Amino acid sequence: MAQVEVGIIMGSSSDAPIMRQAIEVLKKFDIPYEFTVVSAHRTPQKMFEYATAAEERGLKIIIAGAGGAAHLPGMVAAITTLPVIGVPIKSSNSLDGWDSLLSIVQMPGGVPVATVGVNGAQNAGLLAVQILGTSNPELRKKMAAFKQENFEKVNKQNETLDQF
Amino acid sequence: MAQVEVGIIMGSSSDAPIMRQAIEVLKKFDIPYEFTVVSAHRTPQKMFEYATAAEERGLKIIIAGAGGAAHLPGMVAAITTLPVIGVPIKSSNSLDGWDSLLSIVQMPGGVPVATVGVNGAQNAGLLAVQILGTSNPELRKKMAAFKQENFEKVNKQNETLDQF
Amino acid sequence: MAQVEVGIIMGSSSDAPIMRQAIEVLKKFDIPYEFTVVSAHRTPQKMFEYATAAEERGLKIIIAGAGGAAHLPGMVAAITTLPVIGVPIKSSNSLDGWDSLLSIVQMPGGVPVATVGVNGAQNAGLLAVQILGTSNPELRKKMAAFKQENFEKVNKQNETLDQF
Amino acid sequence: MAQVEVGIIMGSSSDAPIMRQAIEVLKKFDIPYEFTVVSAHRTPQKMFEYATAAEERGLKIIIAGAGGAAHLPGMVAAITTLPVIGVPIKSSNSLDGWDSLLSIVQMPGGVPVATVGVNGAQNAGLLAVQILGTSNPELRKKMAAFKQENFEKVNKQNETLDQF
Amino acid sequence: MAQVEVGIIMGSSSDAPIMRQAIEVLKKFDIPYEFTVVSAHRTPQKMFEYATAAEERGLKIIIAGAGGAAHLPGMVAAITTLPVIGVPIKSSNSLDGWDSLLSIVQMPGGVPVATVGVNGAQNAGLLAVQILGTSNPELRKKMAAFKQENFEKVNKQNETLDQF
Amino acid sequence: MAQVEVGIIMGSSSDAPIMRQAIEVLKKFDIPYEFTVVSAHRTPQKMFEYATAAEERGLKIIIAGAGGAAHLPGMVAAITTLPVIGVPIKSSNSLDGWDSLLSIVQMPGGVPVATVGVNGAQNAGLLAVQILGTSNPELRKKMAAFKQENFEKVNKQNETLDQF
Amino acid sequence: MAQVEVGIIMGSSSDAPIMRQAIEVLKKFDIPYEFTVVSAHRTPQKMFEYATAAEERGLKIIIAGAGGAAHLPGMVAAITTLPVIGVPIKSSNSLDGWDSLLSIVQMPGGVPVATVGVNGAQNAGLLAVQILGTSNPELRKKMAAFKQENFEKVNKQNETLDQF
Amino acid sequence: MAQVEVGIIMGSSSDAPIMRQAIEVLKKFDIPYEFTVVSAHRTPQKMFEYATAAEERGLKIIIAGAGGAAHLPGMVAAITTLPVIGVPIKSSNSLDGWDSLLSIVQMPGGVPVATVGVNGAQNAGLLAVQILGTSNPELRKKMAAFKQENFEKVNKQNETLDQF
Repeated sequence: MAQVEVGIIMGSSSDAPIMRQAIEVLKKFDIPYEFTVVSAHRTPQKMFEYATAAEERGLKIIIAGAGGAAHLPGMVAAITTLPVIGVPIKSSNSLDGWDSLLSIVQMPGGVPVATVGVNGAQNAGLLAVQILGTSNPELRKKMAAFKQENFEKVNKQNETLDQF
Repeated sequence: MAQVEVGIIMGSSSDAPIMRQAIEVLKKFDIPYEFTVVSAHRTPQKMFEYATAAEERGLKIIIAGAGGAAHLPGMVAAITTLPVIGVPIKSSNSLDGWDSLLSIVQMPGGVPVATVGVNGAQNAGLLAVQILGTSNPELRKKMAAFKQENFEKVNKQNETLDQF
Repeated sequence: MAQVEVGIIMGSSSDAPIMRQAIEVLKKFDIPYEFTVVSAHRTPQKMFEYATAAEERGLKIIIAGAGGAAHLPGMVAAITTLPVIGVPIKSSNSLDGWDSLLSIVQMPGGVPVATVGVNGAQNAGLLAVQILGTSNPELRKKMAAFKQENFEKVNKQNETLDQF
Repeated sequence: MAQVEVGIIMGSSSDAPIMRQAIEVLKKFDIPYEFTVVSAHRTPQKMFEYATAAEERGLKIIIAGAGGAAHLPGMVAAITTLPVIGVPIKSSNSLDGWDSLLSIVQMPGGVPVATVGVNGAQNAGLLAVQILGTSNPELRKKMAAFKQENFEKVNKQNETLDQF
Repeated sequence: MAQVEVGIIMGSSSDAPIMRQAIEVLKKFDIPYEFTVVSAHRTPQKMFEYATAAEERGLKIIIAGAGGAAHLPGMVAAITTLPVIGVPIKSSNSLDGWDSLLSIVQMPGGVPVATVGVNGAQNAGLLAVQILGTSNPELRKKMAAFKQENFEKVNKQNETLDQF
Repeated sequence: MAQVEVGIIMGSSSDAPIMRQAIEVLKKFDIPYEFTVVSAHRTPQKMFEYATAAEERGLKIIIAGAGGAAHLPGMVAAITTLPVIGVPIKSSNSLDGWDSLLSIVQMPGGVPVATVGVNGAQNAGLLAVQILGTSNPELRKKMAAFKQENFEKVNKQNETLDQF
Repeated sequence: MAQVEVGIIMGSSSDAPIMRQAIEVLKKFDIPYEFTVVSAHRTPQKMFEYATAAEERGLKIIIAGAGGAAHLPGMVAAITTLPVIGVPIKSSNSLDGWDSLLSIVQMPGGVPVATVGVNGAQNAGLLAVQILGTSNPELRKKMAAFKQENFEKVNKQNETLDQF
Repeated sequence: MAQVEVGIIMGSSSDAPIMRQAIEVLKKFDIPYEFTVVSAHRTPQKMFEYATAAEERGLKIIIAGAGGAAHLPGMVAAITTLPVIGVPIKSSNSLDGWDSLLSIVQMPGGVPVATVGVNGAQNAGLLAVQILGTSNPELRKKMAAFKQENFEKVNKQNETLDQF
């Protein structure tokens, strides 16, 4: 079995519908991943252990999604030396996503979290691919192809505008 | 030496000028306290140990102040069973206090943080006194006297309004 | 009949669906409570009397929920020496909860309100338990068990992620 | 001595530099006024008594200024039948005035507060004059003259633009 | 026919479902009113004429509701000497009511608008009654009775809480 | 004397230090302009006349700056058929510019205001040049040259970075 | 075929339902237009080419709509000398429109974007007509007629208010 | 000379005092970097070329800082396949950093920008180190040492608290 390179964690299984968009990206780029519920607030010890062990378990990147007062990405980043990508989630206990966004992005000097947009799990997956691509030219080529695909999709959209 | 009842922690010594307002209240009410820098992000292990040991060390309440993506109060609350009072601090890395406030108050169900206003360390101290007062009628009397003092101070202010 | 320890009040019966989450917590922890509609704005005299009598009636904590320009928690805190827990409610007359939150948490120095997140009545109940726990080791044990339950629930969620 | 028609109250003497702008307006229009510090949070009983007695003391309007979680205007409005004009103050304990504004203007149905802009004590005074003017044609004439003055001041400003 | 005392205007007929709450209040208190669509932006001349003629037509108060960049209340207040009550409306072209609220309440010194909460047309009606009450003791008595009714309604709500 | 093409108006002479940045642009591009204080709130009649006469006086564009509840740009746009450029000003009576921005940009369907950034009077001037350029190829060439200048200024900045 | 005068572009075909409101205006005023999907982020090269060629292709104005971190209007404005009208769109990836609005309106000095309200594509179309009207008196007459129509529509609305 | 691995760009030399904090980090970790002013709005062609050439020039990461309607990070990310780290800057033309933050973080699906906190250039540098560390165990060790340093600095701060 391939070495897992990206650990995807989230504060609650209710975040799964958003976070699975990161999985879809990783699958598309053939990046081995794992997917786990780890709550900073309800399972702090498990979060601590997960973050502490991540590097020696061979993970290269952690993607963490959380809503409301979202501490998971920042706390994991506090513990590990790996890059942590934070996904603010507009969950039911969130003030329209503002709290999630600010709780994740406004980290103090010394402990960065690579934050993507609210509910931006797809972009979290793509950012993970780009990070792995810094030492993998093959992945960079795939990323270029992905960008080309997007370009063509946009062009296709123009064909549907005839109705206007 | 008296048993410490309230542990005051903060993410950085730069928060001390605000947080010492909590100390002044505890001194006034003769509540034994301790005052420590514990950073969720820069000393996560220490934070973990502090929160884990707090109850058995005899603390009854923890007051935690932090700015920006302020995770300290919520993380300590995740670990301990003691009530945690959170003080959002408008520090230099804060978006005018909004990030600190939302990161502290918007905790998920299951893990409360008793949040006071931005820079509201004085109120954090008073809330600690009120909490201890739930099992200490003497403290409640002192609190009533404090309220009376405030009442009189306001009345005194009226004497200075003659200029208008 | 057991002495009521926690008074739960709210500005309108329309807040009841949120505030009853506090009741569920208190029932779970066997804390005697009472539940009343008291409006700062429509029944100010009753609010005044409720807050004035609370301590001598034996209450130890007041939980107050309100929406919009939410004055109930702060006004009760102005009058009583008991700790007051404020629950900002995202009601129909609220600007997405921002007004409720700010009206409750931004209290002036001298009069704290222990504020929980928007619609966070469950956490208000838990905070009340923690406060009572400062003089009741049995309650602290129950709270530790509650945290353990949450830990296990999160772990259970991982079993449902197999579909991803 | 003339019957006081407008009661100006504020939560703290630190609000006086703003609130005196209301006084200047009332002086200009020869409206008898009184000026008092009454804090909803630190002197709730006094606030209650002030609001309760206002109508029978002959007051016709109450102007109330407060900052942060500003409850004074709304609580006075809850008690009296007189119109209450609220002035949100951007005080040191305020989140740039947003909390003061929302705490005052977002009153529930049944209890209006006539809110002016942040630090808008001058407008509070003018609004009081307009309200008294509804039964006093002389005051309406003076108000028309005041508007004419403003018109001329603006025109004068144009003479200073020659430098551009 | 009774002299109309309160003119209710709004920027669009789509604001009518909110603004009619003001009408209901005026009917309840037997205050003669009129109800008209006048748009500052689409019928500026009509707005100008309405505001200019209001006082000599015998109106005593103008209630103006508008959404988005809501200029109607402030422009009418700029022209008339009568008190103007502004109702911010959360209409389809509004940023959740924030633009309506700020466009109405943040008037410059010299031109007050008595602003009520977002969609607060009921309170606009009540404020109009209170303003008329400053020279009409009978209205003040009715207002006191209205407050008593509200008090009793809240008490009634407690009977429905037995289910909790 | 050249026909004035751009009318620059502002609500108060205190806005002049910002608004003169528009003048500097118009001077640079040799566009005849005029500069006047016209307040929607303090000189509504004058505003009305200015907007009504603008087109027949030969103006082609109006630039209007205002702060707080900024109604000047929108009201002028309501009256004239000319394009109106709005400049939100962060003045002393503004909530950090948010009220000015929203009061100007959130116009209802039917009455556009071409809004630039907060304090963006320079851009208002440039936009006026671009609008006139739609029928003036010479101006478009000058605008291209201006863009080239900016390009070179940025390049020059790189020479100052050697210190890093 | 008439020379296209207004180019309407948008970041995604999902923005079409909003942006077509600009088309309806241009049709009504007989302004030749084109309508294309051009994404700053997914087709940056195409965006670059579109903006570079626009002036020599004879376009006079570009209307650009985008949501979230909306860079399309500003980037096109950076490249072309034509006036660019920006339409902030409240799309699914937007924080209620705030991000779209700020990303478009807050342009740095030197590169204006004429911003309309959130989802304000109708106003973008009208602004384009007004800009073309600066050199076309016939268009200005049509615009005056359009304003008259709006005036009459508002008056008609009054007939439907009889129910109140 | 070592191959440059991190390109640091910013929209204006006025952003240099913030952005040099990223340089200090890269120097400390011996990462070869370059530092250039590239403005999306004033030098779009140069920005385009920079982003297009970055990968083949051997860069592995781009750090881009910008204020106001900050398009630089997102536009560079649109063009390159390299990971782009965005630094929102609270510059003079910014609405307290909110516009910069939202313009950078709220990117549409398909084009991620790894966003750090407002003015968080130090964290941008650290994130770059972590990203390079994913294929460089030596760097991960250095990062672990850096975290240990921070831990010790916090502990040292406690010695200065004796005054309290």
